[in-house]
Amino acid sequence: MNIAVLLFNDFETLDVFGPVEVFGRLTDLYTIKFYSLPGGQISNRHGVSLSTATLESITTPVEIFLVPGGFGTRTEVHNLLMIEKIKEVSDQSKYVLTVCTGSALLAQTGLLNHKKATSNKRAFAWVTGNGPEVQWDKAARWVVDGKFYTSSGVSAGIDMSLGFLSDQHGIEFARKVATEIEYNWMEDKDNDTFKAE
Amino acid sequence: MNIAVLLFNDFETLDVFGPVEVFGRLTDLYTIKFYSLPGGQISNRHGVSLSTATLESITTPVEIFLVPGGFGTRTEVHNLLMIEKIKEVSDQSKYVLTVCTGSALLAQTGLLNHKKATSNKRAFAWVTGNGPEVQWDKAARWVVDGKFYTSSGVSAGIDMSLGFLSDQHGIEFARKVATEIEYNWMEDKDNDTFKAE
Repeated sequence: MNIAVLLFNDFETLDVFGPVEVFGRLTDLYTIKFYSLPGGQISNRHGVSLSTATLESITTPVEIFLVPGGFGTRTEVHNLLMIEKIKEVSDQSKYVLTVCTGSALLAQTGLLNHKKATSNKRAFAWVTGNGPEVQWDKAARWVVDGKFYTSSGVSAGIDMSLGFLSDQHGIEFARKVATEIEYNWMEDKDNDTFKAE
Repeated sequence: MNIAVLLFNDFETLDVFGPVEVFGRLTDLYTIKFYSLPGGQISNRHGVSLSTATLESITTPVEIFLVPGGFGTRTEVHNLLMIEKIKEVSDQSKYVLTVCTGSALLAQTGLLNHKKATSNKRAFAWVTGNGPEVQWDKAARWVVDGKFYTSSGVSAGIDMSLGFLSDQHGIEFARKVATEIEYNWMEDKDNDTFKAE
């Protein structure tokens, strides 16, 4: 499966590299590429800078479109061209996975309307305000609704990615990957330690 | 504090970006820069590629030297120039933090001799073979001995980084960061779920 990871300035480091660790180590099954709206170097306040291709340049079918969160989403939710491109790539993708406030960007496309989703519990009011017609779940670690996987904040992207592996390849496969990265996987997607009030 | 992160080809993604997430978000306290022996782009099999400066170019004092693990360590333990530079930078650094098989690289310098340390539990025999005079702990999530912090595999780097914050700024500060990234921090460094047999 081809994974297209969306980057924008001030993306959240672990939102991206948690899932990249989980999928990236399965080199026989998943191939990861990084994209952004303008292409070129995209960086964040953690000092991380990555080279990206333009979203426009995606030609091969995308099986998984990964949308991270981070401070940058506060700007990007108002970027109409960005939202339009996220909608376009999401429409073409077999699955769309969001981490943290990445769900605000996906919500802005309208694709989550009347669907179940979740997001960062520390920024829940802001995120849900960006998608008033979404059925937001305040207690879930991650939510699956059709092709859309949305996760809670930052490290929850790792739990969701393992959940995705479980759905695709079985829970024992996912548990094996969790053990390899010595991660205490929260297997129960419906029960987040950090649930919103 | 200045953090110098060592990269080499085929570093483990999360070994690097777990700690980078934890320290990177504290922009008032920590500044992160990436280094490698040759400088330039350093990449891994997860499709991640980062720009680095040469280790030689470090001029400002380093408070934290972070050494990740990954497949690349299997090659780097035999790279005498690399081990020599790791020793040199470690000597000059206030603290040295290793994640996963990064402890094998540090062990090769001799700096861990007669000190307590830990490493990835999935590669424990290989790592400990690289440091026969180190007091390896098979049950710890991470170990602190003087200026050396060594952690267990991959995601344990996040726990260790939070442990470092706890030692520097108090446990409530570390818990706050863990909550911000919605991470279930394993606070007890002596009790690893993935302990070696």
